[in-house]
Amino acid sequence: MRIIDIIEKKRDGHELSKEEIEFFVNGYTENTIPDYQISALLMAIYFQGMNERERGDLTTAMVESGDQIDLSKIDGIKVDKHSTGGVGDTTTLVLGPLVASVGVPVAKMSGRGLGHTGGTIDKLESFSGFHVEITNEEFIQLVNKNKIAVIGQSGNLTPADKKLYALRDVTGTVNSIPLIASSIMSKKIAAGADCIVLDVKTGSGAFMKTLDDSRELAHTMVKIGKHVGRNTMAVISDMNQPLGFAIGNALEVKEAIATLRGEGPQDLTELCLTLGSQMVYLGKKAASIEEARKRLEESIKSGKALEKMKTFISAQGGDPSTIDNPDLLPQAKYAIELPSKQAGWVSEMGADEIGHAAMLLGAGRKTKDSTIDLSVGIVLKKKIGDYVEERESLLTIYSNNENVDEVKNKLYECIKISSEEVAKLPLIYEVIS
Amino acid sequence: MRIIDIIEKKRDGHELSKEEIEFFVNGYTENTIPDYQISALLMAIYFQGMNERERGDLTTAMVESGDQIDLSKIDGIKVDKHSTGGVGDTTTLVLGPLVASVGVPVAKMSGRGLGHTGGTIDKLESFSGFHVEITNEEFIQLVNKNKIAVIGQSGNLTPADKKLYALRDVTGTVNSIPLIASSIMSKKIAAGADCIVLDVKTGSGAFMKTLDDSRELAHTMVKIGKHVGRNTMAVISDMNQPLGFAIGNALEVKEAIATLRGEGPQDLTELCLTLGSQMVYLGKKAASIEEARKRLEESIKSGKALEKMKTFISAQGGDPSTIDNPDLLPQAKYAIELPSKQAGWVSEMGADEIGHAAMLLGAGRKTKDSTIDLSVGIVLKKKIGDYVEERESLLTIYSNNENVDEVKNKLYECIKISSEEVAKLPLIYEVIS
Repeated sequence: MRIIDIIEKKRDGHELSKEEIEFFVNGYTENTIPDYQISALLMAIYFQGMNERERGDLTTAMVESGDQIDLSKIDGIKVDKHSTGGVGDTTTLVLGPLVASVGVPVAKMSGRGLGHTGGTIDKLESFSGFHVEITNEEFIQLVNKNKIAVIGQSGNLTPADKKLYALRDVTGTVNSIPLIASSIMSKKIAAGADCIVLDVKTGSGAFMKTLDDSRELAHTMVKIGKHVGRNTMAVISDMNQPLGFAIGNALEVKEAIATLRGEGPQDLTELCLTLGSQMVYLGKKAASIEEARKRLEESIKSGKALEKMKTFISAQGGDPSTIDNPDLLPQAKYAIELPSKQAGWVSEMGADEIGHAAMLLGAGRKTKDSTIDLSVGIVLKKKIGDYVEERESLLTIYSNNENVDEVKNKLYECIKISSEEVAKLPLIYEVIS
Repeated sequence: MRIIDIIEKKRDGHELSKEEIEFFVNGYTENTIPDYQISALLMAIYFQGMNERERGDLTTAMVESGDQIDLSKIDGIKVDKHSTGGVGDTTTLVLGPLVASVGVPVAKMSGRGLGHTGGTIDKLESFSGFHVEITNEEFIQLVNKNKIAVIGQSGNLTPADKKLYALRDVTGTVNSIPLIASSIMSKKIAAGADCIVLDVKTGSGAFMKTLDDSRELAHTMVKIGKHVGRNTMAVISDMNQPLGFAIGNALEVKEAIATLRGEGPQDLTELCLTLGSQMVYLGKKAASIEEARKRLEESIKSGKALEKMKTFISAQGGDPSTIDNPDLLPQAKYAIELPSKQAGWVSEMGADEIGHAAMLLGAGRKTKDSTIDLSVGIVLKKKIGDYVEERESLLTIYSNNENVDEVKNKLYECIKISSEEVAKLPLIYEVIS
């Protein structure tokens, strides 16, 4: 087999065989095929696409390029959730305890990552004493006992994806749906999930800006999941503005606690119930999506969900009393309001820009070595479609610096007020199963 | 300027500026841009193409990436000819003395190259004593005195094209008309030509298999020439079968001598007169194509063209008496006929395969270090559309080995005889000026 023939075949719009896909994925991972041939192939894939079978085979080849996590010692069906990334997305913190509380095992491997705020582990470290430095055996025992535990990422998962992603990033081939879909799915599959629930964000603050692209990505990933024998469902949700109100680490934890108590923002609660229902249904803890949703709603009402959060935090060294008394979470020195310059309806709330403002406050990492300030961030008081009076506060900035003029200016720039009434945005555009 | 922005711009179908084209050509030549980014860009160009302005700027950037030959000390308008490559193409050997004989300066820089037969220099070395090891000063003096001289390639011409071609060859991006056209034109322009005449071959034995592609390539190159201020004309000629009768080095020299004497194959003579007329017209030695053709026909008739060949060969150390006595050229030991297995009309004569058979006899180089046997080759007796009797000879194989069974089998495979009458092929499909 020769890589040049594979490049020309794809360039001319033909289907690559399973063997050809394995040949280029393995050859690139093992450095026997040079990057200049792979980048030409990636650009050919960008233009010619890949069909369902090719996408599945590409995903499998990437999964098999490295280690795969074995979760077989955990009882029950392991359902993992993935979000394509947004701002103020507190769903993971809510969903873990929520679905665990109805018996679905949550074996979460997580990272710190770069971004507007920290990763799930950073956020959980807002609980004094909480840590993820546990052995694989402890991890498995905890999940079997409590149905939920979080461990830091380890092992050489999907090295092919890491190499391909780095190459795509510098060759203009990131924005290809087959390549995005197989990258995401290979990571989830290698991490050991039996079933996968996807939250595909759409809108100005999302990777996929249009509903059409988001829909295609979601359908593609669901089909890949089925192709490789991992049952997969997806939700397309709005990211034209931040989800919920809080953007920041401890601030999002506080919002997650409120949500588990039944007092969270309406949009965050709704998205968690939608994604959670899919997880519970795929985890076979309910016979239908409707029944799954009822079980989750009851778990919130009865306090079981909140109780599960306490068990989980305390099992990994955190102080569970924080859950009843969220003021124990890291607190910023200053709470500064952002008054509206005019009366009217909020018409725009650029999610990316608000996330960037939170990062400027210290909530996120710019580079791997940055330190995160867990206490800082932003809490919205208004969302798109809400009416605001002149000088009424749009949001609160939580900062450890008194001077937040730069952040304020950025926020004023990205929040638009209209003198005409503006409709609220839909939250969920489509549910794909 | 960032290469990633240039890749994405072209990928999305936009026009690259002159500065962007220079940036990537120079960056690649100077190794400041890695090959994996250039190969992605080449594949994007493959899919999105380049407009007239971009093609011109790409050609100029490649010309300026290295040395440029200065022919300004040669009197008159220097007109160069380029063929996109075929089998049995003896035109250069005929055209040089032919157009020089009517006053157009022929300052030919030539190579040895790989292929079915040797390059122009190899063929000329069939004249005992002929050599191209002359200084630049001698070369210029000879052209000014005789209107014709040949020198071996020297200097660092179009290094960008060399690097880009090597990369295209291994990344599936050879077959792109803007890239082919700018590659050919940059070499001709760097070699110092004022005007360029192109012989674009079309058909099964050519690089361009279809007339549409050949036409697009020809028009593209003519436009590039105009864009960079070098007047350019083109002919699209047939390569569904070898041109003329001879394939081999000394055999083609013998055929060239016959053609200059007015006794050559009809197709070779016609193509030389067509291309030659364009050269004479562009070189301003005739006021029209028709007048140019008349001058060339007269030059053959009067013996001036043949006389010019003698002057040329003898000026570079060759034995001019060979021209009156072609038996002095290298002779193969065996002349073996290939009898037709059936009566009928010749319907196919795969040019590539016949060229390959000549190479098997030793007429061409497989690698840079191969030695060429100047004496061997093939002389056709029939061409497509000719009638052949059963057991009548189709061609003569000239070999220094008595056993030519492998060559015979290859030839039988690629020459097809039809029991129904077959039309002769047109020679010239289009003339573009």
